[in-house]
Amino acid sequence: MSEHKFCHRCGNSAEQKIPAGDNRPRAVCVACDYIHYENPKNVVGCLLEWHGKVLLCKREIEPRRGYWTLPAGFMENGETSLDGAAREVREEACAECDNLRLFAIYNLPRISQVYLMFFGRLRNGEATAGEETEAVGLFSQQDIPWDDLAFPVVTETLTRFFERKQERIREVHYADIISRPGEPLDIVRHSG
Amino acid sequence: MSEHKFCHRCGNSAEQKIPAGDNRPRAVCVACDYIHYENPKNVVGCLLEWHGKVLLCKREIEPRRGYWTLPAGFMENGETSLDGAAREVREEACAECDNLRLFAIYNLPRISQVYLMFFGRLRNGEATAGEETEAVGLFSQQDIPWDDLAFPVVTETLTRFFERKQERIREVHYADIISRPGEPLDIVRHSG
Repeated sequence: MSEHKFCHRCGNSAEQKIPAGDNRPRAVCVACDYIHYENPKNVVGCLLEWHGKVLLCKREIEPRRGYWTLPAGFMENGETSLDGAAREVREEACAECDNLRLFAIYNLPRISQVYLMFFGRLRNGEATAGEETEAVGLFSQQDIPWDDLAFPVVTETLTRFFERKQERIREVHYADIISRPGEPLDIVRHSG
Repeated sequence: MSEHKFCHRCGNSAEQKIPAGDNRPRAVCVACDYIHYENPKNVVGCLLEWHGKVLLCKREIEPRRGYWTLPAGFMENGETSLDGAAREVREEACAECDNLRLFAIYNLPRISQVYLMFFGRLRNGEATAGEETEAVGLFSQQDIPWDDLAFPVVTETLTRFFERKQERIREVHYADIISRPGEPLDIVRHSG
C-alpha cells in the first residue's frame, strides 16, 4: 500500500480512495483533495567496455553490499535517461563514457522499476571507486564474478551483452524480469 | 521546486536540504528525517496500425483538449511498460492491440517525463471513444491532422513511423525532445 499517510501539500491526513474518473485507489487529502500519484521509477545505468573487458563496481552500500553491479541508479528530474546513466558512471566509478547508445529496457513490475541500460566505451579505460563503491574492476567474459552479481537485472544485462556480441546484433533488448514470492525468477524476453 | 511542503509519512514540515551522502536538495522531514525523492514519470502509449491507417484519439480533457493524440498515459505501479501501454489503449480507445513491440523512447527533461511508445496492430480495426476521449479515428499518412496534434512527442512519433516504414527500419528510436523558454523546440535523435 501507499506510504502516503499525510498530504505533502497541506499536511492534513490522506486517505486511500478512488478519485472521480479514476479506476484505482490513490492517497487523497481529506482537507484539500490533493491526489498523490505514485508511479514507477527509472533506474539508468551503463555497460562500458574497454578492450573487450567490462566495467563492474563492488557495492559499498545496501542492498547487496559487497556484490558486483553495473554502475546504475535512480534517474533524476530534469535530466535525460542517457545523461542520467553517464552521471551514475561518474558518481559510482569516477569514470567517463563515450558513444553511449540505448542497449536494453527491463520492466521489474514487482518493485515498480524500469531499467534503461546503455552501452558505451569506458574513456581511457580509467575508473576508480566512487562514494558508494568499494572497488571497481574490468572483467573479461570468463572472469565475470557470475555468482557474486548484485541483482538479476545485472546478470541478464551481462548475459545478453555477451550473447549478442557473438551474434553481432545491435537491436535494443526489451524484457520483463518477473519475480513472484516462492517461485523461480522468470525473464520474459520480448525482443532484441 | 518541490511540491513537498509536508512529510507524507508523519505530517510534520519538510524542508529542502541536501541529505548526507547526496548531492542535490530533497524535501526532508524536520521531525522524522524522511527523504522525499521526486523522480521522472513514464508515459506509455501505442501507435496502432490497421490496413495502413493509424489510430488517433481526440482529447476530451486538458491539456490540449480537442487536439489529436496517440493513446498514452502515465505508467502505473506494478505493471510492465508494455502492459501499461495496452491498458491506456483500452481506457482511451476501448481497443485491443496485437503484436506490440517497443518502438521509441523519448526523454522530455524539462517536464521530467520519459515516453515509452509501442507499435502494434489494432485488433479487428475496432475502437471507440473512452472516458477521456471525444472521438477516435483511423488516419492514413496524408490524412493525419498534422496541425492539430496535441504534443510534439506525438508529431515526432508519427513522423518517425512513416519515415521508417518507407526505409523498412525496425530499430528502436531513441531521442530527446528539448524545450527551452523562448527557443524553438529541439529534437535530438540519438538512434533509430
